[in-house]
Amino acid sequence: MFNKVLVANRGEIAVRIIRSLKEMGIKTVAIYSTADRDSLHVQLADEAVCVGGPQPAESYLNIKNILAAAVGTGAQAIHPGYGFLSESAEFAKMCSDCGLAFIGPKAETIDLMGNKEHARQMMIKNHVPVTPGSTGFINSAEEAKQIAAKIGYPVLLKAAAGGGGKGIRQVAKPEEMATALASAQSEAKTDFGDDRMYLEKVMQNVKHIEVQIFRDSFGNTVYFPERDCSLQRNKQKVLEESPCDLITDQERSKLGKIAVQAAEAADYVNTGTIEFLMDQDHNFYFMEMNTRIQVEHTITEMVTGVDLVKAQIKVAAGEKLPFSQTDLKAKGHAIECRINAENPANDFMPSVGRVDYLYLPVGNPGMRIDSALYQGEVISPFYDSMIAKVVAFGKTRSEAIAKMRRLLKEMVIRGINTNQEFHLAILADPGFVKGEFTNTYLEQKFLPQWKEHLHGQAISA
Amino acid sequence: MFNKVLVANRGEIAVRIIRSLKEMGIKTVAIYSTADRDSLHVQLADEAVCVGGPQPAESYLNIKNILAAAVGTGAQAIHPGYGFLSESAEFAKMCSDCGLAFIGPKAETIDLMGNKEHARQMMIKNHVPVTPGSTGFINSAEEAKQIAAKIGYPVLLKAAAGGGGKGIRQVAKPEEMATALASAQSEAKTDFGDDRMYLEKVMQNVKHIEVQIFRDSFGNTVYFPERDCSLQRNKQKVLEESPCDLITDQERSKLGKIAVQAAEAADYVNTGTIEFLMDQDHNFYFMEMNTRIQVEHTITEMVTGVDLVKAQIKVAAGEKLPFSQTDLKAKGHAIECRINAENPANDFMPSVGRVDYLYLPVGNPGMRIDSALYQGEVISPFYDSMIAKVVAFGKTRSEAIAKMRRLLKEMVIRGINTNQEFHLAILADPGFVKGEFTNTYLEQKFLPQWKEHLHGQAISA
Repeated sequence: MFNKVLVANRGEIAVRIIRSLKEMGIKTVAIYSTADRDSLHVQLADEAVCVGGPQPAESYLNIKNILAAAVGTGAQAIHPGYGFLSESAEFAKMCSDCGLAFIGPKAETIDLMGNKEHARQMMIKNHVPVTPGSTGFINSAEEAKQIAAKIGYPVLLKAAAGGGGKGIRQVAKPEEMATALASAQSEAKTDFGDDRMYLEKVMQNVKHIEVQIFRDSFGNTVYFPERDCSLQRNKQKVLEESPCDLITDQERSKLGKIAVQAAEAADYVNTGTIEFLMDQDHNFYFMEMNTRIQVEHTITEMVTGVDLVKAQIKVAAGEKLPFSQTDLKAKGHAIECRINAENPANDFMPSVGRVDYLYLPVGNPGMRIDSALYQGEVISPFYDSMIAKVVAFGKTRSEAIAKMRRLLKEMVIRGINTNQEFHLAILADPGFVKGEFTNTYLEQKFLPQWKEHLHGQAISA
Repeated sequence: MFNKVLVANRGEIAVRIIRSLKEMGIKTVAIYSTADRDSLHVQLADEAVCVGGPQPAESYLNIKNILAAAVGTGAQAIHPGYGFLSESAEFAKMCSDCGLAFIGPKAETIDLMGNKEHARQMMIKNHVPVTPGSTGFINSAEEAKQIAAKIGYPVLLKAAAGGGGKGIRQVAKPEEMATALASAQSEAKTDFGDDRMYLEKVMQNVKHIEVQIFRDSFGNTVYFPERDCSLQRNKQKVLEESPCDLITDQERSKLGKIAVQAAEAADYVNTGTIEFLMDQDHNFYFMEMNTRIQVEHTITEMVTGVDLVKAQIKVAAGEKLPFSQTDLKAKGHAIECRINAENPANDFMPSVGRVDYLYLPVGNPGMRIDSALYQGEVISPFYDSMIAKVVAFGKTRSEAIAKMRRLLKEMVIRGINTNQEFHLAILADPGFVKGEFTNTYLEQKFLPQWKEHLHGQAISA
């Protein structure tokens, strides 16, 4: 096992990883930008190295400085968390060039799955259903229009190297194709240095269902109960839950087997998540694979009782998976609410400033709040606005919802705006409570109503 | 189900109960003394009624005012928590006289089990092994000496109505008997209004092992994995864990059956705990029964995944037990550290004052901190010094210990003294880590060494 691990991230996920490392008796090295000097992850780690200025490119994406910090402190491995360098095949490769273990899949796997179109072709080859779309890359607007005519509009133009909602354009009719393609290619070129595009049919009335898998270097592969991450705004997940109550045990095990098959086909090692769209007839279509720990891994931990980060570290150190498929039945239902420093009443504008008062409700069974927040912390404008993940677990979905409402009503964060009330409104929404929402529900159904409600409140005030 | 419940307690247990009630959609009424106006349980409850002055007798033991608060607010039931009126048969009876459900066993059961000598006789009648001692009450020092001569010194003189370490005297030889009896009787008369005494042999090299049971009004009875509460100071539990790794599955199920048999013999309804002493040959001897939820119920919840307070409320409302025996296997190991506002370096003197800064580490899997603490709270001198229960869960005992160390190192409570460092020293103690400690280990082995260590630190400082 490693003696010392560097955590190449910040915020709640850096804190979460450092905590698991400490419990395993492994020394921890944090990295930080000049904006994060006083951050919790810096305070908790055994050592901390400043790797650059506040802009991500200067620090948390600064491969050279991060590798120097790892080598300089004598770390044997790097955990990349999510975001930043977590899905950089180049970083994974440079880690191994420096003799450092990268806690994640092999560089080649990241490379393969990171190109969305390559991943799609691999899935087709392995009989995993994918959404209707192009075979290979799109070479011209004319070709795109031909394919779209065959599969039906609307379609999505997607950058093969894409991620985080960038390099994507929805096209409703042939006349829009040329402009959309040019604009998406230009964005993809800027953001990813790669303007290769592919095309997919826009699936209507679908849920975002994802399956996390885990594989060790001995070829043992397991899957976890699925997560329903359909509630999204601007392609960002807002609230996730596991399992999806609409899915039967039989469907769950069938879907799990598809995911395991895909992981084995890619010779995947460590944990990753395969994202699917599920239509109303419960057909599943491969969307993409995330080759890292995800934000919402917390709900999977709550329903199965495992520590996924500890397992990542063990598998990266060459150990066998510390659990088997039979251990991974859902023992109840878990929900995660992503608490962001933002102002929902003002179009979700990010909110920055000092946290003047903080009360996180920490007792009673079936709860967890992953966060790097502390009273007196100053939230800076440089990074993602997510400041806490509130997780509630219950024997049933309705118990988990009741617990989440109670937790969010108790939680106090003063000094900045958050989306706490927005989440409470979702939790009280009949459509949410029924569980029958799709991946457009939040933006198309819930938000318009909620804005009207806010507007009404403003007038009566 | 009840619409509204009054919680007749304060501090962490009031907060814990209010939270479960809220999740069940039940309205909550808090009671408070004038010293507790700003307490968290008052802030969280839907309604709060001041029932008297800071002294417990004026408020939290003031049956008349509490019942008036319940009737006046339209509550249908009272949850007594632990301590205060939780084991008062009189209070339970007066609740039912007022048409209020008492969330606990029947008044007659409390009465029966509350008299420790009656409980002992009942266990003997039901073939539950008890510690060697008197049969019936002691009428004179002469009689006590005769029994002690038969079973062997040292012996304990115990008040039949006793509890909380009061009305107990250890007697090492015949010459001490008369004085000890008079003194214990006088204390028992003052504290409990009942000076009836009985006598028990002092068991050497024993562990305090307890088994929680739960029984509904339909006669369904279950037991939970045992708790090892051997680490005590001044007869107060300091650190508890579940299960006890020294006990085999076979012993566990045998002990569980004894506990179930005892609960059925007493026609017990709701939850309670049977305390045993376990000798080095793993023989179990009945000590006493607690007819209420216990402080350390948290570790049982962690290892089994149930909410015991919700189950108490359901059973009190006439519902069936929400779990069966097969659900109650330990899924890992849990430890609870009782964090007290006290100064271990100054003979554990209670510490009072304002909590200037508070950081409770709330993330990652397998943890829970039950507490009524908040930043800015003023700890008053009127009540028990326990201010938080830190609970860690792991797949194994050593994982739970590692997690607890990590939690206690992260936790920050400034403005008052606590026993946080004392707990960290216990967690690092080889005797504790081996798990082979008895109920005198903390006072006789650990504390003398630790005081020497503190003394050494003071000199070198």
